[in-house]
Amino acid sequence: MAVVGKLELLIVSALLLLTACYSNVQRGYKTTLKSVASSEGKPWPIPQLYIPTPTTYTLNSDSFKINPTGKTCDTLVAAMTRYYNVIFYPGRQNDALRFKPISKSKLTVGTELPYLNVNLENDCEIYPSLDMDEWYQLFVKSDGAILTARSIWGALRGLETFSQLVYQTPDGTFTINDTKIEDYPRFSHRGLLIDTSRHFVPKKILLQNLDAMAYNKYNVFHWHIVDDQSFPYQSRHFPELSNLGAYDPHTHVYSQQDVAEIIEYARQRGIRVIPEFDTPGHSESWGPAIPGLLTPCYKSGQPDGSYGPIDPTKNSTYDFLKVIVMEWTKVFPDKYVHLGGDEVSFDCWKSNPAVTQFMQKMGYGTDYSKLEQYYMQNILNIVSSDQDGYVIWQEVVDNGVKVRPDTVVEVWKGGFQAEMSKVTQMGLRTILSSPWYLNYISYGPDWPKYYINDPHNFNGTDAQKKLVIGGEACMWGEYVDGTNLISRLWPRASAVAERLWSPKQYNNTAEAAPRIEEHRCRMLRRGLNAEPANGPGFCKYEMQVN
Amino acid sequence: MAVVGKLELLIVSALLLLTACYSNVQRGYKTTLKSVASSEGKPWPIPQLYIPTPTTYTLNSDSFKINPTGKTCDTLVAAMTRYYNVIFYPGRQNDALRFKPISKSKLTVGTELPYLNVNLENDCEIYPSLDMDEWYQLFVKSDGAILTARSIWGALRGLETFSQLVYQTPDGTFTINDTKIEDYPRFSHRGLLIDTSRHFVPKKILLQNLDAMAYNKYNVFHWHIVDDQSFPYQSRHFPELSNLGAYDPHTHVYSQQDVAEIIEYARQRGIRVIPEFDTPGHSESWGPAIPGLLTPCYKSGQPDGSYGPIDPTKNSTYDFLKVIVMEWTKVFPDKYVHLGGDEVSFDCWKSNPAVTQFMQKMGYGTDYSKLEQYYMQNILNIVSSDQDGYVIWQEVVDNGVKVRPDTVVEVWKGGFQAEMSKVTQMGLRTILSSPWYLNYISYGPDWPKYYINDPHNFNGTDAQKKLVIGGEACMWGEYVDGTNLISRLWPRASAVAERLWSPKQYNNTAEAAPRIEEHRCRMLRRGLNAEPANGPGFCKYEMQVN
Repeated sequence: MAVVGKLELLIVSALLLLTACYSNVQRGYKTTLKSVASSEGKPWPIPQLYIPTPTTYTLNSDSFKINPTGKTCDTLVAAMTRYYNVIFYPGRQNDALRFKPISKSKLTVGTELPYLNVNLENDCEIYPSLDMDEWYQLFVKSDGAILTARSIWGALRGLETFSQLVYQTPDGTFTINDTKIEDYPRFSHRGLLIDTSRHFVPKKILLQNLDAMAYNKYNVFHWHIVDDQSFPYQSRHFPELSNLGAYDPHTHVYSQQDVAEIIEYARQRGIRVIPEFDTPGHSESWGPAIPGLLTPCYKSGQPDGSYGPIDPTKNSTYDFLKVIVMEWTKVFPDKYVHLGGDEVSFDCWKSNPAVTQFMQKMGYGTDYSKLEQYYMQNILNIVSSDQDGYVIWQEVVDNGVKVRPDTVVEVWKGGFQAEMSKVTQMGLRTILSSPWYLNYISYGPDWPKYYINDPHNFNGTDAQKKLVIGGEACMWGEYVDGTNLISRLWPRASAVAERLWSPKQYNNTAEAAPRIEEHRCRMLRRGLNAEPANGPGFCKYEMQVN
Repeated sequence: MAVVGKLELLIVSALLLLTACYSNVQRGYKTTLKSVASSEGKPWPIPQLYIPTPTTYTLNSDSFKINPTGKTCDTLVAAMTRYYNVIFYPGRQNDALRFKPISKSKLTVGTELPYLNVNLENDCEIYPSLDMDEWYQLFVKSDGAILTARSIWGALRGLETFSQLVYQTPDGTFTINDTKIEDYPRFSHRGLLIDTSRHFVPKKILLQNLDAMAYNKYNVFHWHIVDDQSFPYQSRHFPELSNLGAYDPHTHVYSQQDVAEIIEYARQRGIRVIPEFDTPGHSESWGPAIPGLLTPCYKSGQPDGSYGPIDPTKNSTYDFLKVIVMEWTKVFPDKYVHLGGDEVSFDCWKSNPAVTQFMQKMGYGTDYSKLEQYYMQNILNIVSSDQDGYVIWQEVVDNGVKVRPDTVVEVWKGGFQAEMSKVTQMGLRTILSSPWYLNYISYGPDWPKYYINDPHNFNGTDAQKKLVIGGEACMWGEYVDGTNLISRLWPRASAVAERLWSPKQYNNTAEAAPRIEEHRCRMLRRGLNAEPANGPGFCKYEMQVN
């Protein structure tokens, strides 16, 4: 992998400051009225090495071509068409026909950029993975633009960046600056958690959100698909899970076809889909379909009709888990599945006589975290036996469960610095989500708060820091559904996206503000209801809000 | 006006508790999984007198008729068609063709309700006004439903209520309970402020919002149309105001036709449009078009290039105001215009030598509030001379400006109880907005906070209380535009709507919760992106989210 040294980064930073001077010149828009003026044609997240110059070229939608000059495949062909539309026909690219071009490309003065050649060096991989290579190089020169990538994933990232470099001048001319870029992500796991259990989120919105993720170079859709409140996943083997556990078994479910469509849509955009089936807590909605799975809670020596976590004492529990885990690994192509393991309450287990008896038999005394370990160990073994990897919430290791060395631990609680130190000291890989719970809202712009956190801000050796493979923004669903998910997430989640992709040195919110302002308008222009990033202002193209 | 006594209200409350028992019976939906279970067919805001019974009737979309049996007019005919569609063809009623009926009415057991007769007693008024009569009576009986209203406005409110009484059972059957209602608003001014200056809000979204207002019996759209940041109102006499003051003179403006369309859309729904042209502060965007209007600010004896409030010392200021005020009164049919008058900073006036000279000439000493009074007095006289009324923010009277007795004072600052006492002691009418700044957001449901405030909660005599003519929810636009206005407003603004319409005694948020839960789902079913009102849950019909 081509690595950029610190000296080069300093040079780039200096160049950026210089180029900022010309690119912020405003051409007749009333940007002085905006609380933050937009940049023009500046990418988000910012590349590792980014050298724009003041020389500009024009693009003509009638003649501009995106050509594959190396290897090619369906994924690339689809992406080239998609990005042609994103550049010239804004609005949801799937609905390209609904949107007329905002402005016909008019050739004003300036050299025309005739093409973008996409030079893909290796055969396409089918699915993205934790190890995917997202490196690319992009040169925009007078004779044409050249995008070079080793893998299809790098080509997708480079196409996204190219599309962001193009902007429209006031007369509608599509314009791009002569630019050199070399780019790759700082972290390989850049995830976004969506909770579809507290509220159901229509498939259409999840697909829109995958577009937004691609526009921000996120590469993991962490699908918190089921929880206590509802079970919208329509299982092949246990259809009763959603028949009895979904809010509505007909309208509030993800069919196998829906899931396949979402995975395919994500795959086309280089986004992994990691489903989370959170157990043994957070599983109330599983209960009605699988009698005996949940622990009956007792009061005064009698079952009180309520249920607690999954019953870890029964063999039938693990027989069921073997089948459902095998289904998950077949349905979801990613090597990883998220097994949850957070917030297990012991109260119900304590009340249940059969559980008490089991505790005695196993010699656990009154240490119920040993019982939790017993359960997690069993389910982790089931997953491991399928040669699959897993992600778990931090409690699993906090409670001393022995995990495989390739386990990924997701840190979500406050005081994450100590936890990150601890987990990496154990030699385990980790992803951070604590500072990025975007479901918590407050008045005014909060993206700077998300922007300045860094997953490496903890005490640890270089070896420990290398075990941090990324992070995740989380949108828990207590107050979010299809009505407000997109506007509430974007561009707030963009702040996390740049943190996880770009060099650590980019941590100046004043420098980032004009670019995130432009980026939110870019998303709006592409048909996404991304809400205002900063204070008062406007986007040139916002009339298609739907 | 038919007034309901306290005893009757007590009886109604008791009946409500009784009927709650049967109407909350859930029929197979997993409402136990919702943090708050929905009511079924309960109106929001709740009527003054509301007596539902357990007897139900079915409605057949093929045969059900809404008939005018008294006076009629275009407004009524349009409303009857609109509400037929709202009941049977959910989704935006303008786009009725885009939405298929969610469920074909199936005749299950039960008596069919054949019709709703609308007995309008008086000729239609063209425009709604502060004095409009919104009283109606509604009986749903086995032989048919009868809506009686004296005025068209009451008929509109009654149609809204009738449409809310209809709900669908799980098999899709449209159902209504045998019900008696007598209803009228507690306050005659029930407003919603939308700020279209900090961000431009597309006309399409403003129209959607007028639908939402009608669904909540709001009757005043307080259009904070211009401010410092931008001037989107396209003036007949001074087109330069938006040419130079709008964010974009082509795309971010309201043309005369747009304004007329918005007023007409509102009129059809019994909603007054009161524009606010806020002066002498909050007027920076007026400056570029009207040279000499704003006060040039000085630093070290020289103009520093910045501008302050409108210059109150020049005759040309008032010559300009006479023309623009006359235009407003022609364009906006309502008797009232909002003249602002809030947050006038004196710093710039103090720095300006010509202003200092004027202060001396007038004998104001260094009391700049006297200068503010001078300005406000002049503009109020201009408006008064046109026989029009005005609303102003509280500072105008706080600063001692003499106002006409029919002035309406809008209280917006904290500690509103003392201010309401003061203003009403002066014999002035007042509307309250302090507790209802919905632009301030926080995590979790905040509608209960808005719900429990009451405009009568201040120390004063009965005569003083009568001077409170209503209140307004405000959505200031710093962080809100077309992308998030609807979802952020609704159903939070519904809490204020019920406070301003329904009897004061309805102040129990636990009682209101199932109804607001149903009401948010009702709005969603009608095609509005109303966000979740409470915690986890779902709406039966939410798939059309667009």
